[in-house]
Amino acid sequence: MSVDFNALSQQFCQFYYDQFDKDRSQLGNLYRDHSMLTFESSQLQGARAIIEKLTSLGFGKVAHRISTLDAQPASENGDVLVMVTGELLIDEEQNPQRYSQVFHLIPEAGSYYVLNDIFRLNYA
Amino acid sequence: MSVDFNALSQQFCQFYYDQFDKDRSQLGNLYRDHSMLTFESSQLQGARAIIEKLTSLGFGKVAHRISTLDAQPASENGDVLVMVTGELLIDEEQNPQRYSQVFHLIPEAGSYYVLNDIFRLNYA
Repeated sequence: MSVDFNALSQQFCQFYYDQFDKDRSQLGNLYRDHSMLTFESSQLQGARAIIEKLTSLGFGKVAHRISTLDAQPASENGDVLVMVTGELLIDEEQNPQRYSQVFHLIPEAGSYYVLNDIFRLNYA
Repeated sequence: MSVDFNALSQQFCQFYYDQFDKDRSQLGNLYRDHSMLTFESSQLQGARAIIEKLTSLGFGKVAHRISTLDAQPASENGDVLVMVTGELLIDEEQNPQRYSQVFHLIPEAGSYYVLNDIFRLNYA
């Protein structure tokens, strides 16, 4: 299998953050029952729990800006590991918050789902 | 297999950064021929190339301080994914540089090696 993991990762993150910023309740089909999300100090497992967490975040308007995006093949099965650093703009705040995020993407039926998702704000 | 992936990840990172800060030329046995390092915009594969890169970094005295460390199981085989955010103090500089790093750890013969390693400084 010859997948361009850099292009795939960029496409995935663009789709993910666009969808997150537009309507994060619709991200559920990117996760499976065994998927895991660490969001700051919260740990969730399963698409339903993950989406409940994401939709419960107390911000309305949100925008992600990617600063760096690095990807590597993570197995011989086509898994891809992506690390993003970026800026998060919440509601009407002037100062973006920096964050770091990792996605572990698993190929399935011609597409990919998220097995691992770790998100942390970078406090100054 | 019941491994405490949180304890493992903390032990690994403590060992890794202690060794890095003391003598990073000795980190080679943590990598294999198919291991990958992304260090800023550089991409390396294989223990030898990775150590050459790390030892060529133009700083003498270095210290890592972990700010956050989050781990998740990354497969049914015992793989572990770790994301670290932290501060890097280089030489005699007063202001630490913030960084983000991901390790993908693979079990082997009672220990673990690093399959994936992605490192990025977080520019302000």
